[in-house]
This record gives sequence, structure tokens and C-alpha cells, in this order.
Amino acid sequence: MTLPADLDLSRVEATLRAAAAAAARETLPRFRTPLAVDNKYAVGFDPVTEADRNAELAIREVIAAAFPEHNIVGEEHPSEETGSPFTWTIDPIDGTRAFIAGLPVWGTLIGVSYEGKNFAGLMSQPFTGEIFLGMPGRSTWERGTEIRVLRTRPTRDLGQSILFTTTPALFAGDAEARYLRLERAVMLARYGCDCYAFCLVAAGHIDLVIEAGLKPYDVAALIPIVENAGGMFRTVEGKAADQGGDVIVAANEELLQAARAIYNAN
Amino acid sequence: MTLPADLDLSRVEATLRAAAAAAARETLPRFRTPLAVDNKYAVGFDPVTEADRNAELAIREVIAAAFPEHNIVGEEHPSEETGSPFTWTIDPIDGTRAFIAGLPVWGTLIGVSYEGKNFAGLMSQPFTGEIFLGMPGRSTWERGTEIRVLRTRPTRDLGQSILFTTTPALFAGDAEARYLRLERAVMLARYGCDCYAFCLVAAGHIDLVIEAGLKPYDVAALIPIVENAGGMFRTVEGKAADQGGDVIVAANEELLQAARAIYNAN
Repeated sequence: MTLPADLDLSRVEATLRAAAAAAARETLPRFRTPLAVDNKYAVGFDPVTEADRNAELAIREVIAAAFPEHNIVGEEHPSEETGSPFTWTIDPIDGTRAFIAGLPVWGTLIGVSYEGKNFAGLMSQPFTGEIFLGMPGRSTWERGTEIRVLRTRPTRDLGQSILFTTTPALFAGDAEARYLRLERAVMLARYGCDCYAFCLVAAGHIDLVIEAGLKPYDVAALIPIVENAGGMFRTVEGKAADQGGDVIVAANEELLQAARAIYNAN
Repeated sequence: MTLPADLDLSRVEATLRAAAAAAARETLPRFRTPLAVDNKYAVGFDPVTEADRNAELAIREVIAAAFPEHNIVGEEHPSEETGSPFTWTIDPIDGTRAFIAGLPVWGTLIGVSYEGKNFAGLMSQPFTGEIFLGMPGRSTWERGTEIRVLRTRPTRDLGQSILFTTTPALFAGDAEARYLRLERAVMLARYGCDCYAFCLVAAGHIDLVIEAGLKPYDVAALIPIVENAGGMFRTVEGKAADQGGDVIVAANEELLQAARAIYNAN
């Protein structure tokens, strides 16, 4: 994929940041709402749904002001299709269960694609104050005034690798046995991280993530973060994962192929 | 349990805080060490083990200076037995796997017991800057200048409750079927949180935690945090859990009994 020469990448980055900040103003005040099940809003009040919907609207507003000609696709509201080769894909709260439970591993995801290939993306975790950003040629982690360039790990051996998945229950029927075979081949397997786990691969803390049944908005932001840190983000068949599906994310090509071989073996 | 009238609880609290701060100086710089598997210290260098051992020594030093006559029990170093009815119980890093993986849900745990009953405890998560503190009559959450009194949820119905466990793999043999029965009875089950999950019960964000095979240092700090927020911290048999074991932690008595009934049924 070659991006158009007149694309202003710094404007894309500024828009990602501004959109994430707008989303945080909607999500953070609704995170860890005390006694949500027992408060005066109990009937019909759902802080997660509200946070989700309002954050997506806030993000859309920022994008539409900066790039009115681009498509916008989100989880919570209908798509805005303009016929542009550029699409912004939004998941205002990835990890709804974590959000509900008060666990700071959910994130706001915003990705930007050109002709179907995601080339820029941001994951924001407002409670910890972390931003993971993937732009062509670089991935970075930021928190307050701290900034680090992200680089995946050089682990080549499955037996030395750390694997994450949200829950083994994602892998139904035949896939369960495949997943468990992979789990037995790694050094350490852990559950329950949603988008945060993908960012931990980019940051060089873990080696592998496997997830089943992902949607385009689950992956759009994360692909540029992982790939520009040196990682691989593929379907279990080894194809581009921009449309989601069953995916394997690995710190490097060798680990991806080793994990795919175990998962796909008959 | 009645505490001795001459016990200075504010000194206990100050010591818990000072010990946690000393531990954080050992753990935080070793958390998310970049490229640990490939760095110059690769041979024999293990940031988690170093953080664990050094943090426990730092904690012991603070306690011994404040209460030289008390027993100290920790995960990493031999016990110091004085014959005192007071014991400080330390887990410098609860959630070692989370620490290794770069996930901020591990914690430093310090509990204080009198005649075998834990009455004060602290959980510190230095990356997020959170402190959960349980003292006789109150549990609090703090972060920077923010402070909140903790209160468990009023959920009475298992079908409305959120359950956490570190991994279903903890439940071997017969216990697996029991655990899965409980998982099917709740609204939402989630994996992978170690000490953080217990604090989320105290904070009123989730309703239940079940864990198998816990040690005294896994529970000592958490019992006062949960109980002084209104929750129940028991073994699956319904007994005091100060020695660890297979435990169920619940937002309230009714939920504890409902969960125990499902887990213990034949």
C-alpha cells in the first residue's frame, strides 16, 4: 500500500489524539460509577452503554471536522459512507466487560485505513493515562510526559513465549482443542485482556495474542500499533486481518508461523 | 477478636503506607523492563525475582523499625518468629504473571494479624498509583489526592452478579465441575486478576471472587480490605480464611451463601 503523497500524516495523528481526548471526557466519568446497580438511575441507566454511545459521537465529531470527506465506521452508530478510500474505524470502548468490572484494561480504539489497509491507529486507556499510537514507521507509548518507542520481542521459541487470550471460551468446538494445543506449547498463558494485550505485544512485554471472531472495529486501531513495532497481525490462515476474524498476533514472523502451525495442524 | 487497648492503629496504618512506598521503589523500576529476554543481563537476570526479593526486604525493614517485637512472614524470605500475638504477612508481588506480562493488575500485599485474625491490610498498585486500605471500621481507595470510602455492592441475586477468578485451570478434577457450575449461575465471569479482583469486590465494582489453593500471604492483606467494606472473605467451607485455602469472597452474606451452595452441591 502506498499512501497518497498529499496525505497530511501529522493531521491524521493530531485528529487521533483529539478524538481520543474527546472520548475520554465521556468514558472516564462513567468508569467505576459507585454502586451503579443501586443508585437513583437504576432503572434504564447503563453507564457503559451511555459511555460507549457518547464517546463514539464525540469521536465522530472530531473526525468529521478534520476530514469531512472520509468514511466513518463505528460499533454503536450507523456508518457514514462517502465513497472516499479513507475510513476511520471506531470502537469507543473495547473491553466492555473490563469496563463494567472496574478493571483498567479496556481502551478506546480508533484506526484509519486507506483502500482497506489500516495504516494509523491509537489505543487510549484514560484511567492509567496511557496512549499507544501506531503511525507509518513508528509505534509509541505515552503517559503524561513519558514517551517510549515500541518494539516487539525477539522471542523465536514458542516454549519461551507468553500468550494472551480474552477467554478460552471464545474457541468453540474444534477450535477449543486447537487453542489448548497452542496454550500447552507456550511458557505462560493468561486470560482476560482485550485490546490491552495487543498493545503489550507491541510494547515487547508479551509475545502472542490469539482471539476468535473479531470485528473490523476490534482490530483497525491495533494493526498499525503492532505492525509498526515490528509485530505480525494476521488471521489464523495467515492473511491480512483488517476485516477481523480469528487472528493471531505475534512479536515476529517466526513466532507467527510457529503458532499458526500448531493451531492449524490436523 | 478484640484488639489490645494500647495498640496504636494510626502507627499500624503509617507503617503499612511506608512499607508499601518502600516496596514500590523496588518494584516499579523493574516493571516493564524493556526487552528483558534480550538484554545484557539475560543470563541469570530475572527482574521479577529481583523485584520480589528486594521489595520484601524493604518492607521487612520498615516493619522491623516500627514494630521490632512483631512476627514477620513473607513469601520470599524465612519467617521472623518472636512469639508476639501480632504478625505482619507480606506478598511483595501478588500476580507475578501479570507483572511479567506488563499488566498493571499485580499488587504489593501487606496484612497485619492479631492472634491469627487479620485486622489491617494494604494493597498497593504502584503503576496505577492506587492504594486499597482496610483498617478496623473502614476500607478506602486512594490515588494521588483522590480518596473514596469503599462499600461492597448490594447484589443479592447470583444471576445478577459478576464473578472473577484468576483461571479456571486452578480448579482441578472435581473442583472444575463445581467451578463451572458457579460460572454458569452468574451474569458475567472473567479471568485473570489476582489481588486486584478482591479489591474490586471491596470497591463495589464486582460481586464475587473464587480462588483455589491460596497461601496465607495471598489473603492476609485482602481480608481486612474486603471485610471492612462490608464483604465476606471465607473458605468454600464457610470458615475464616486467614490461612488461605480455597476461598470465596462475596459482596455480602446472602451472595456468599448462594455461591457456596452452588459450589458445594453434590
